[in-house]
Amino acid sequence: DIGRQVLGPEPPGFLSGLNIVISAGPTREPLDPVRYITNRSSGKMGYALADAALSAGANVTLISGPVNLAVQAGAKLIPVETALQMYDAVMTHCPTADIYIGAAAVADYRPQQLAECKIKKGSDTSNIALVKNPDIIAAVAGLQPKPLVVGFAAETDDLENYAKNKLQTKNLDLIAANWVGQAEGGFESDRNALQVFWPGGQQILPMTDKHTLAAQLLKLIAEKLHEKNPVKNS
Amino acid sequence: DIGRQVLGPEPPGFLSGLNIVISAGPTREPLDPVRYITNRSSGKMGYALADAALSAGANVTLISGPVNLAVQAGAKLIPVETALQMYDAVMTHCPTADIYIGAAAVADYRPQQLAECKIKKGSDTSNIALVKNPDIIAAVAGLQPKPLVVGFAAETDDLENYAKNKLQTKNLDLIAANWVGQAEGGFESDRNALQVFWPGGQQILPMTDKHTLAAQLLKLIAEKLHEKNPVKNS
Repeated sequence: DIGRQVLGPEPPGFLSGLNIVISAGPTREPLDPVRYITNRSSGKMGYALADAALSAGANVTLISGPVNLAVQAGAKLIPVETALQMYDAVMTHCPTADIYIGAAAVADYRPQQLAECKIKKGSDTSNIALVKNPDIIAAVAGLQPKPLVVGFAAETDDLENYAKNKLQTKNLDLIAANWVGQAEGGFESDRNALQVFWPGGQQILPMTDKHTLAAQLLKLIAEKLHEKNPVKNS
Repeated sequence: DIGRQVLGPEPPGFLSGLNIVISAGPTREPLDPVRYITNRSSGKMGYALADAALSAGANVTLISGPVNLAVQAGAKLIPVETALQMYDAVMTHCPTADIYIGAAAVADYRPQQLAECKIKKGSDTSNIALVKNPDIIAAVAGLQPKPLVVGFAAETDDLENYAKNKLQTKNLDLIAANWVGQAEGGFESDRNALQVFWPGGQQILPMTDKHTLAAQLLKLIAEKLHEKNPVKNS
């Protein structure tokens, strides 16, 4: 438009030129062609982060489990279903990333066996043998060089302890913790509140809509990236 | 409109005045506050049947697991999540129904224990103990008097045998069988084909959109109801 031509190009966003990989949504761990184990993640927080990162000028790769959401034009969307597929996609894209945000609710376990045919109902009881899925965020944090790694902790109890423990044991740069299973906020809500921890500090981002919260969290992430690497994006 | 006023009221549909209960969609069987076992049912066939039954003049009660669909105004929608909740809703509404169509993909099993807090990741392997859910359609078919009971069989293999066996062992009046996990049709598709069986007969409804298929199936259901009970709705 005319104003833009007179004023020159829009000033670059605070994440201009940075590569951000975001994983979002649940994973589905199939038992057979029709049944699977999953969780209540809606993907809303991860998609809000992708939108906010695009607005801040980042190159966004969004690796997403099955959700009913659309992402802004401009993001590279990589749809996946299982934790193993998400692991592969994340590990493919993170070596060239400046920031990785693990906002997906990745299944900790998958069924040991995937039946080729629909399993028929049999005895009165049954059981599903499970094996552990790879720890995606710990794998990213183990890369050399590694991007700035941001995790999420969605907990029903003892939030602060779990979050601080996850920050340390997984070697994360930042962790955003939120309650789930509460009256407000969490997985299926449009609103959320976050308690953000980093080595030596913390900040509370109070209950608001997930889009405002995403922009606030990205500002904090940009600060941490700048502290860690003052040359880049200064 | 004027035409309608001149021509008089619209002729009653072929299901006018009949009470139809339809169950649709998947069920979710929770492991803890965030994780659950479910299946790929989209609910599209059940919702298409509800729409078609409304258009044919029926009083429609739609008992639905979690789906991303809207039903036409006029249906009584009862949202449920688990198989146990669906069982309760169906058994509440079926004693006054003329027709019950079980189009839901009800989980055969549920986790034996529902954890109050989110289960933490532990050892490399784990397992989920399961117990059998009640057989909703068999319970409806056991009511005295019972509505006309229509079941579905979604199978990945040996479709005809499974369907005929289910028709007989569950004492159904009609069963609509369809392949899942194929290139076309099935759970997540907008299209489907059905092979319909009843005691002593069968009919194939070829691949088409689920709305056309729903209307065709309802015509067949109305014929069976008329054969079974020539007095009602004649």
